[in-house]
Amino acid sequence: MIAIILILLSSSSNMFVCGETWEPSWSKEAAKEAEKVAAIECSGHGRAYLDGIVLNGHQPLCECNPCYAGPNCSQFISNCSANAGSGDPYFLEPFWMERPEKSGILVSGWHRMGYTYSDGSYISEMLVKHIKKLHQLVGNVVTDGRFVVFGGGSTQLLNAAVYAYSPDSSLQSPAKVVATAPYYPVYRTQTQLFNSRDNRYEGDTSIWKQNASSVNATFIEFVTSPNNPDGKLTKQILNGSNVKTINDLAYYWPHFTAIPSPADQDLIIFTISKVTGHAGTRFGWAIIKDEGVYEKMLSYLDSNTMGISREAQLRALKLLDVVLEGDGKQLFKFAYSTMKNRWTKLKEIFSKSKRFSLQKLSPEYCTFFKRSRDPTPAYAWVKCEREEDENCYEILKAAKIDGRGGSLYSAEDRYVRLSLIRSQDDFDILINYLTKLIDQE
Amino acid sequence: MIAIILILLSSSSNMFVCGETWEPSWSKEAAKEAEKVAAIECSGHGRAYLDGIVLNGHQPLCECNPCYAGPNCSQFISNCSANAGSGDPYFLEPFWMERPEKSGILVSGWHRMGYTYSDGSYISEMLVKHIKKLHQLVGNVVTDGRFVVFGGGSTQLLNAAVYAYSPDSSLQSPAKVVATAPYYPVYRTQTQLFNSRDNRYEGDTSIWKQNASSVNATFIEFVTSPNNPDGKLTKQILNGSNVKTINDLAYYWPHFTAIPSPADQDLIIFTISKVTGHAGTRFGWAIIKDEGVYEKMLSYLDSNTMGISREAQLRALKLLDVVLEGDGKQLFKFAYSTMKNRWTKLKEIFSKSKRFSLQKLSPEYCTFFKRSRDPTPAYAWVKCEREEDENCYEILKAAKIDGRGGSLYSAEDRYVRLSLIRSQDDFDILINYLTKLIDQE
Repeated sequence: MIAIILILLSSSSNMFVCGETWEPSWSKEAAKEAEKVAAIECSGHGRAYLDGIVLNGHQPLCECNPCYAGPNCSQFISNCSANAGSGDPYFLEPFWMERPEKSGILVSGWHRMGYTYSDGSYISEMLVKHIKKLHQLVGNVVTDGRFVVFGGGSTQLLNAAVYAYSPDSSLQSPAKVVATAPYYPVYRTQTQLFNSRDNRYEGDTSIWKQNASSVNATFIEFVTSPNNPDGKLTKQILNGSNVKTINDLAYYWPHFTAIPSPADQDLIIFTISKVTGHAGTRFGWAIIKDEGVYEKMLSYLDSNTMGISREAQLRALKLLDVVLEGDGKQLFKFAYSTMKNRWTKLKEIFSKSKRFSLQKLSPEYCTFFKRSRDPTPAYAWVKCEREEDENCYEILKAAKIDGRGGSLYSAEDRYVRLSLIRSQDDFDILINYLTKLIDQE
Repeated sequence: MIAIILILLSSSSNMFVCGETWEPSWSKEAAKEAEKVAAIECSGHGRAYLDGIVLNGHQPLCECNPCYAGPNCSQFISNCSANAGSGDPYFLEPFWMERPEKSGILVSGWHRMGYTYSDGSYISEMLVKHIKKLHQLVGNVVTDGRFVVFGGGSTQLLNAAVYAYSPDSSLQSPAKVVATAPYYPVYRTQTQLFNSRDNRYEGDTSIWKQNASSVNATFIEFVTSPNNPDGKLTKQILNGSNVKTINDLAYYWPHFTAIPSPADQDLIIFTISKVTGHAGTRFGWAIIKDEGVYEKMLSYLDSNTMGISREAQLRALKLLDVVLEGDGKQLFKFAYSTMKNRWTKLKEIFSKSKRFSLQKLSPEYCTFFKRSRDPTPAYAWVKCEREEDENCYEILKAAKIDGRGGSLYSAEDRYVRLSLIRSQDDFDILINYLTKLIDQE
């Protein structure tokens, strides 16, 4: 009897105390290493990464958020300026930290060593499927019958698109590349750096408004919707059969704007940076109608980098797996909720100001959330209203707010772009200084 | 007494039956998923990957090696041609499969979401350190005091270097880009695709040999050593203060060539594809002497893609961790041993032939292996010796050997490049057909 009890007890403790049956074999080291680094405490004001700097100690250093310092980022630097410059999408980090189980990916030592996928291309077929599903779910782009090309961020695809729309022969005039102020400066600086004989940056779209169709050259018009920096939904300006548009819809997601209808233009570009928040992954995609344009963009990607990292594509696949789970709305609800709260706070502060104003934003019906809603753009496009306040960037800088001056976007310097998509730490510091500044009026 | 025994037994079964103490928590799903896919049997003639096509079943399909087919790649297609075309470095795959524990990396859902590392750059400082260590260990490049830039494969760095060496102003003549036949066609096709006003592909280096220094323009000479396709160690041809060289040392590793001395030129480019075998990662680096050239290349990388994938850099770091372990020679011994065996077999077969010949290869002293050794290049550069055999590619193709014709490398079509760095399956099939072909003479 005692023997039976002993045996039962020993067996039961195996099942109930040892836990579930699966245990890692070869993956253990990688899993352990990742959990160890994730457990490094950075006071909630920083992060340690697997590839962070390792000094004399044996674990990577905490990398602190702006205005925080110290070995575990617990020291707040009191007179430190708010970082409201770049669009690093850290506002989405909490979403991923709440889902560690589902969002990690273990890349084996032998993962995809070859140059191509099994179909001979540089493009993951499973990832294309996921992207089309994502767009169908959100309803922001028509994807039926379209071709898809991947690039290193939308950045690489912008020039690939300019190349694809430019003439093939030197017998034709170079294409004229235009953008409408205020616009994302890379459209101009990138085109100028590459300095191709087949195209040339030709200034603001408005110059060509009246006579584009009568010019003997192709126009390549950048249309950004929502626009960066001011968040407005835009349409192309030039008309004519010689006008091609590159539609940069990086921000056309429910977290930033209503989705009135699915976009349907011939060439549309997206980036994972502004949907899941993974800017460091360098992954963007173009949705293309015309097969000839698609083939030209593939040639460009082949020549430039022979496609993009297999790891970036694998990671994007895993992240989109998580996004598409269930009703596929969790990420967008989280992101929209954060942006809405931030805009509510911002509008409240600016409502007290006569000196500074925000861009005007009108509500629109959103087919994703199925109701009318205000835009909640990634950036505040602040205007210094006083006539003498010509350099808004300097005025805000003196008030410890580091934004980006309007002239960077080919607008007047009485405008400043403030990033609202960084971490909660960055946003809190920004709100603090804005409150102080406006209280002084 | 019985109670004590019971307690002891319960506790001991926890320790000895449950196994070691560490168990994964949030990393479990990623680890389990990776092990599951790795366990998919593809008969040793294919591989299943985490992002492979998933049909009605619940696991990714086996992706079969050339000439193998079926759901688990067990069917050999008997009249299928040998794939001896591209340089997919599968010959290194067994090295990584033998080290699954050390070579995997688990990327968390929140890994490096921002645009930059903590120093504001796109370049992982830890990875730069590893690369310098690697070069010191192998002794193939001088890295002291040099700048390092990363790119999407060496591919992206080639054009970044052409850009960096080209004039900044349209007042100067475009730089003349040259390469020496037989050469890797991308130097020409890439320069032509980008078609920058600041440079132009100007033909074979030999045309300019006599008068380069008297021409009022910069020459940008591509020097590939060992050369692709013929594996020879080369030096620059043109002389003059107006001559800049881009030194593509992708194959300058002990698996392919003796290392007589560390390379010391002003701009040297490498790719992880040809050292660890991870061509799909799209990771290359340039080692640069001049700070101005370094800054220009950084601008190019910024404009083109805003740096490269953080996942690619993390993966490269992990892989180099493994390479640098112990005496740091394991990978090179493995790789050299494979290449040596393959060349021994190849030379044996070709020794019986009067119709076909291999490139002449002379032994050289290697500072890495500390002895004289024959080159073991990545490619055989086969020549059809009979006068009437003008198209060697077609002759080999008819004999079921699919290589690359000499004209692709700007050489005569009586040459064919055969890839010797693919999988053992590919090499065995190649040897089989070569043996048959030469036996027929």
